[in-house]
Amino acid sequence: MTRTYVTRREYDEWLNEAASLARALRYPITPDMVNDSAGIVFGDDQYAAFENGLWSREPYELMVIFEALNEPAVDGLPVSAAHGSEYSGLCDKLMIVHPGKFCPPHYHQRKTESYEVVLGEMDVFYGPEPVRVDDEETVTFSPMPAGSPWPDGVALPAGREDTYAALTSYVRLSAGDPKFVMHRKHLHTFRCPADATTPLVVREVSTYSHEPTEHAADKPAPLPTWAGLHDNAFLSPAANTGRLVTHIR
Amino acid sequence: MTRTYVTRREYDEWLNEAASLARALRYPITPDMVNDSAGIVFGDDQYAAFENGLWSREPYELMVIFEALNEPAVDGLPVSAAHGSEYSGLCDKLMIVHPGKFCPPHYHQRKTESYEVVLGEMDVFYGPEPVRVDDEETVTFSPMPAGSPWPDGVALPAGREDTYAALTSYVRLSAGDPKFVMHRKHLHTFRCPADATTPLVVREVSTYSHEPTEHAADKPAPLPTWAGLHDNAFLSPAANTGRLVTHIR
Amino acid sequence: MTRTYVTRREYDEWLNEAASLARALRYPITPDMVNDSAGIVFGDDQYAAFENGLWSREPYELMVIFEALNEPAVDGLPVSAAHGSEYSGLCDKLMIVHPGKFCPPHYHQRKTESYEVVLGEMDVFYGPEPVRVDDEETVTFSPMPAGSPWPDGVALPAGREDTYAALTSYVRLSAGDPKFVMHRKHLHTFRCPADATTPLVVREVSTYSHEPTEHAADKPAPLPTWAGLHDNAFLSPAANTGRLVTHIR
Amino acid sequence: MTRTYVTRREYDEWLNEAASLARALRYPITPDMVNDSAGIVFGDDQYAAFENGLWSREPYELMVIFEALNEPAVDGLPVSAAHGSEYSGLCDKLMIVHPGKFCPPHYHQRKTESYEVVLGEMDVFYGPEPVRVDDEETVTFSPMPAGSPWPDGVALPAGREDTYAALTSYVRLSAGDPKFVMHRKHLHTFRCPADATTPLVVREVSTYSHEPTEHAADKPAPLPTWAGLHDNAFLSPAANTGRLVTHIR
Repeated sequence: MTRTYVTRREYDEWLNEAASLARALRYPITPDMVNDSAGIVFGDDQYAAFENGLWSREPYELMVIFEALNEPAVDGLPVSAAHGSEYSGLCDKLMIVHPGKFCPPHYHQRKTESYEVVLGEMDVFYGPEPVRVDDEETVTFSPMPAGSPWPDGVALPAGREDTYAALTSYVRLSAGDPKFVMHRKHLHTFRCPADATTPLVVREVSTYSHEPTEHAADKPAPLPTWAGLHDNAFLSPAANTGRLVTHIR
Repeated sequence: MTRTYVTRREYDEWLNEAASLARALRYPITPDMVNDSAGIVFGDDQYAAFENGLWSREPYELMVIFEALNEPAVDGLPVSAAHGSEYSGLCDKLMIVHPGKFCPPHYHQRKTESYEVVLGEMDVFYGPEPVRVDDEETVTFSPMPAGSPWPDGVALPAGREDTYAALTSYVRLSAGDPKFVMHRKHLHTFRCPADATTPLVVREVSTYSHEPTEHAADKPAPLPTWAGLHDNAFLSPAANTGRLVTHIR
Repeated sequence: MTRTYVTRREYDEWLNEAASLARALRYPITPDMVNDSAGIVFGDDQYAAFENGLWSREPYELMVIFEALNEPAVDGLPVSAAHGSEYSGLCDKLMIVHPGKFCPPHYHQRKTESYEVVLGEMDVFYGPEPVRVDDEETVTFSPMPAGSPWPDGVALPAGREDTYAALTSYVRLSAGDPKFVMHRKHLHTFRCPADATTPLVVREVSTYSHEPTEHAADKPAPLPTWAGLHDNAFLSPAANTGRLVTHIR
Repeated sequence: MTRTYVTRREYDEWLNEAASLARALRYPITPDMVNDSAGIVFGDDQYAAFENGLWSREPYELMVIFEALNEPAVDGLPVSAAHGSEYSGLCDKLMIVHPGKFCPPHYHQRKTESYEVVLGEMDVFYGPEPVRVDDEETVTFSPMPAGSPWPDGVALPAGREDTYAALTSYVRLSAGDPKFVMHRKHLHTFRCPADATTPLVVREVSTYSHEPTEHAADKPAPLPTWAGLHDNAFLSPAANTGRLVTHIR
């Protein structure tokens, strides 16, 4: 049976190497950004990734996120405009994904994202149509592009293949490309190509990240209506819980 | 009498050198970002900066902005939350300011900003209290820090000294520092120190920039209520008009 | 009639922008490296480049060299091995060439060079066979590769076309390529492609540069036999003199 | 009893992370530079470093060297100057040292080096006077600076403390500092400070590296007199053998 934890040594090596890479790329890393919520393993079954290690090129769902900014941007907002403010705000993070590894398929009801590849190449997979949430009517201004069909030979995480089925659109992003916008309510995922020579390093600028991680547990809500919001809807139930706490021994 | 234009050669050299610096620093510059609205001279009287050139270290108000993203982020928004959406959205730009030069004092009713110094050092000056707009009641969650008093010897643009008077708070930002948030409705400005060896290069991640520049003139409004919004309130009247068009001969 | 000088303002802008680019690319620039010998115009007729400026993309021979190291490496050499030491030593410089501009065709009797492109692309043109100097017999171990024929459409500096005729081999170098070695006694030159979006930035690691520039005039010779050596043989006589002093008004 | 090898997984992770860091810092890494001689463990007793891993901050002697250039520079040399040519040539390498780790104390009879810190900080320790080799008379032109005394609290590799005793001069180098020259025949070593947040990354530009590593075993000698030269004299006998082969299981 495979293990369901990462050792302290493995975790610290993962984070320290990732933070070094981030610093080399001039991302503004402060010491508190390198913490036990920054390395994310999306579910107990994904700790098996550490049996052969981060450079095995095997498909697993795990990544590092260094978050330099998660600003609600409610200060100065007219009280009359506070309704709906949880769709707003500013988040800036650097995501570091090893070759073959994935972010798990998910969508955000509220968060709109944009990607800027800093190092390596990024395979993005997404649903071209938004997910319908409740029966709410939504605004359409500039829909997602159709994208391309998947390339051949993308190895998916074992046991989670089904969660990728609806993400039929594909695009590969490289350093220097225009920012790529992922609208809220679109299923999406991404990976670092399995044959890459470096981890994928992506800067994500987005609206506020509502994520009740261990690290964020004791922070006050900007507005009462924001309290307890969790805006990540992962298709794999195990990823939903895995996102919030990392088992380190 | 001083001139009120920049020559095509001066302008192109300014923009091409700035874009080269941005590319060297890995900012995702696409050819359409290097355009005749990217180099900004904040009013007819500021073209005098070109008499001795960008490296004279004299105080003038002019800068380059390369905008990689200005995403309204309205897609997928519930129609019921569209009210107030103009306080939201995502903008990512790189600002390049030569030694001694300033961005002119201004505030945004709607835009909240954050700064990340990429190269050089940034002198930020701001009003610690928000400007009161109409009689609207606003949200307060995490007020601006008090900052420090101004250092000695900051040479201000001639004839515009008064517009800096209310910006009594000061902070110096360097590469690697935590992101610095400037809340909406706060007067602010910044400069590159006059004795710097390089231009100041700053990444600004903010909510949507409502700026009806020449370059943006023919773009449709995301929502009818956004049409014609201009969210920059410069204290110098000449800066307000100068922001929107650059006189190049 | 065209002018035979660069203005102080033009020169300082050229050098300051180049030094900023070098710093952004992490080259170790110290203040004394930014001097009046760093910007090189290879002959009186090449100052015409400043009439339309560095971004005109016209072919002229001028460039910036920031020299971080020129170490004779004679300390600790056995006295018995001092003969021939002028073929040795260590030089590290960063060369910055604007679009369309060239280094003039030349060879070094003593200096072997290597190129590492840091930003942009480098068109290298060279003579595949070494120049015969006097009747000395020379060592052959790993000859220069044959290279490719010239691409079409390379605009050469007016009046100097003949000096490029014998450099029949061509190679284009990009960032990340293996270091390219140019053996001593081979005619060579290079340019930044005329349609480039940034200046070409190249690091050259070589043996000692014997160049009696104004800036180096008062430095003692490491060994008596090195005194007065000038190891640059430019095919254009005007380039030979132009290399050593820049006319700045 | 401690082990005397590094596992294939540990080795590959070490090298792949180091190569990623090198690429992020724009060093020209080609696939053949990432090989089984690039990660160096200086003696059987130093493999104990892998028990707690590279981020334990414990003092051990091990490092990564990516060599982009090792050019003998004999082509075009007059036959009459070939005597002594083994003191010449050009080598360019990137060295990556984890926090607390050292290069072992050694000197080169022939090689003169220079250091350029790319990331982090470098503690250099050296003997201010050259080592006397045989009875040869040597050239003196620009002697090594005196340096400073050692700072407090430098933890040395267990069992090898004596080999550091004669290296009484100290200097700390940072990114942007002038190149620091280490003349041939001077004892020297360096480390990454134990409390560093990133590995130390240093570019070394030097004369030719005569190192008969496994990776270099089948390369022909540029001149007959160079055959079999080994120019590294480590004070720890175990380091001398450890330099040439890495035990990977």
